Amino acid sequence: MYLRKVFPLVILAAGEGRRMGEVKPLVKLLGLSLLERTILSFNEAGIRKFYVVVGYRKEEVKKHVEEIRKRGIDVETIDNDNWKKGNGTSVLAVRGREKKFFVTMVDHFFEKDVIKDFIENVGRRNTLLIDKEVDRVFNIHEATKVKLKGNKIIDIGKELKEYDAVDTGLFFFNEEIFEAIEEAMKEGNASLAAGVRKLAEKGKIYGHEKKRGYWIDADTKEELRIAEKLILKSIPKKEDGIISFNLNRKVSLKISKWLCNFNISPNLMTILSFLTAIAGSILFYFGKYIYTALAGIIIQFASIIDGCDGEIARLKFLSSPYGAWLDTILDRYADAIMAIFVTYNGWLIYRSIIIWFFGLFSLLAFLMASYSRKEYELRYNKKLEGKIDKLSKRDIRIFSIFIGSLFNKAFEFMVVIAMLHHIIVAIDLARRRK
Amino acid sequence: MYLRKVFPLVILAAGEGRRMGEVKPLVKLLGLSLLERTILSFNEAGIRKFYVVVGYRKEEVKKHVEEIRKRGIDVETIDNDNWKKGNGTSVLAVRGREKKFFVTMVDHFFEKDVIKDFIENVGRRNTLLIDKEVDRVFNIHEATKVKLKGNKIIDIGKELKEYDAVDTGLFFFNEEIFEAIEEAMKEGNASLAAGVRKLAEKGKIYGHEKKRGYWIDADTKEELRIAEKLILKSIPKKEDGIISFNLNRKVSLKISKWLCNFNISPNLMTILSFLTAIAGSILFYFGKYIYTALAGIIIQFASIIDGCDGEIARLKFLSSPYGAWLDTILDRYADAIMAIFVTYNGWLIYRSIIIWFFGLFSLLAFLMASYSRKEYELRYNKKLEGKIDKLSKRDIRIFSIFIGSLFNKAFEFMVVIAMLHHIIVAIDLARRRK
Repeated sequence: MYLRKVFPLVILAAGEGRRMGEVKPLVKLLGLSLLERTILSFNEAGIRKFYVVVGYRKEEVKKHVEEIRKRGIDVETIDNDNWKKGNGTSVLAVRGREKKFFVTMVDHFFEKDVIKDFIENVGRRNTLLIDKEVDRVFNIHEATKVKLKGNKIIDIGKELKEYDAVDTGLFFFNEEIFEAIEEAMKEGNASLAAGVRKLAEKGKIYGHEKKRGYWIDADTKEELRIAEKLILKSIPKKEDGIISFNLNRKVSLKISKWLCNFNISPNLMTILSFLTAIAGSILFYFGKYIYTALAGIIIQFASIIDGCDGEIARLKFLSSPYGAWLDTILDRYADAIMAIFVTYNGWLIYRSIIIWFFGLFSLLAFLMASYSRKEYELRYNKKLEGKIDKLSKRDIRIFSIFIGSLFNKAFEFMVVIAMLHHIIVAIDLARRRK
Repeated sequence: MYLRKVFPLVILAAGEGRRMGEVKPLVKLLGLSLLERTILSFNEAGIRKFYVVVGYRKEEVKKHVEEIRKRGIDVETIDNDNWKKGNGTSVLAVRGREKKFFVTMVDHFFEKDVIKDFIENVGRRNTLLIDKEVDRVFNIHEATKVKLKGNKIIDIGKELKEYDAVDTGLFFFNEEIFEAIEEAMKEGNASLAAGVRKLAEKGKIYGHEKKRGYWIDADTKEELRIAEKLILKSIPKKEDGIISFNLNRKVSLKISKWLCNFNISPNLMTILSFLTAIAGSILFYFGKYIYTALAGIIIQFASIIDGCDGEIARLKFLSSPYGAWLDTILDRYADAIMAIFVTYNGWLIYRSIIIWFFGLFSLLAFLMASYSRKEYELRYNKKLEGKIDKLSKRDIRIFSIFIGSLFNKAFEFMVVIAMLHHIIVAIDLARRRK
């Protein structure tokens, strides 16, 4: 393995941010302060060392940084007593500590893949992350525009008439930035933008095009709400099942958004969803229609809140291998216990031994559909994602039983979806044979 | 990922090898010719380009190389018409084609990890793979001994009285070897050993100590039998289950050794073992003791031959992700069908609904024990190998039912081992929680 030096991130958090109404780094967004969110999102993408430049109400910010440090993040504060002059002074405050570093603002948010792509692909020349899809930029009149020649930035500023891209507020700098800011200051402008323009004049800064994914500069409370929406919208995954994508996620994300404000761990949600599924399953035992229908509703609800553990983990950067492992094992146990009680429900209706065979084959199907996928991933080192595989996922099997239970046909619906699961496993095996 | 140049391997296969009785490169060992085995074992370890230096009965060897090339291996032959003078001339024949290369003999065998460690750790200086455990070297009087000073080889030869290690016959050379061999030839010795001694005199060759694993120089038919034993002995894995290690492997390796001589693919063995398990399971349906006992014997036999697919794959370098995937999926289906029929067997005895619940929980246990392990491996990128995990493997569950069936208690034994499986899954989850 080739080990690459990862440079530190300098977070500019010295400004007053009047339009936010509070001390900006401490403003909450989905359960985390803006500063925590910035640090944790860059930490997730691979940055291991952080500097927070503080100025306005710095004692409060420093106290908060102290709390973050206690959680094991290597983060230091840098005082910038000149913060009122402009945010260029905050970058100057890094001088003597680091020669190469990333810079972003405390109120800019980027999707993980956007950050990863940037930090993995720059590291020598001064570079700005740019967005060429200018038509899609929110608040274009407030944005800083960039004029390019090839990859080189030849002009930058809010007032540019002709431009090729927009400044996203994520930079990589080497020592040349210090001199450039000083030059701009001599001309009376201590903003980082003025320093960057000096670099552009000398042909010493380049643009790196943003990879697919969101970014937002959240200057106002309204823009914070937009940032929240963008972050939530980035959660549903391409590989989500059909019911999950179109129904479950829409509800679970609303619940997760609300739960983010409390100190609820993803693992607690895993266990709550598991217990809900078990409680629902047990109701199949009684056999009366009203219980069966209620059981169906509860297991479908359990299937919805099953999304919350992963969502909270991603929204608050709490993902862990243990959490993912626990979630999957409990999902399989919940599926199995559901199959067992639905089988008993069928037995109450038909009173035939054959019911138990169908039950055993259904339980087997639910586990094998998932097992086959996992085993494939282990062997081939990639996900098994054919079109038909969407039809053998957890969201579909629970939804089928839920619908079946409304017609008092939970057992029949379960057997049909289970047999489909077996067929899909067989098709997958047959197809991939060379 | 950091990509490293892998140098080619030159295989010395020009000699007469009188003691073998046939053309040496074509002699068969466990279903493959010595030449195929050498090429495929280095290919498995990462070498991608091969030269075979031919001399004695070269047309036959060339025809065989042509067959190997057709299977997609990048291999060329190099003629050495001077082969009778000594094997140094075979290395000289490489001049003009490669400047840095590995060299081994067609009758030397090394365990995969030994090769991997060598090819991953040398690539600049002339290097010889040496074995310092001289006490354990078979036929020490015939071995070439090595005297070291630090890592430097200062003397080498069969007659050395004082020595630190033994020459294993695997080298890495740069161009300096050509001159060294020529010097030795001028003094009347055209062997590679003489050339290597010239390098040693100049302080230009180093020893690399062999990693744990077998190596053997198989000069005679008797030594070939020893090589066969060493290769077979390297198959059982540390993570094999208790019954597998102590019983199943001992039988299956004998079967695999014999099957190696036929054109039987590992996947065919996977399917045969699956069908045997199903056939055995069905006998549990009848309920009479004699059928139950027979069922137990057949499933235990299926469990034994379940090892053959992987063994043949490893012995003949036929491992594939698909093969591993298919094997695991069919094992789980076989486990499940066995659980289903054993449950029916229990039902015939007890005629109580509770039997079906136990059956469902047993099937679930068999799948979850394996599922939990796979999921752990996916999430943590390492195997879950606690001591107790040996008690929830396939060999144990089938052996338990086999023993149970001999006492006409297959169902009871299944339930007990299944509940143990569930407990182990729970312990694993609880233990790894931080």
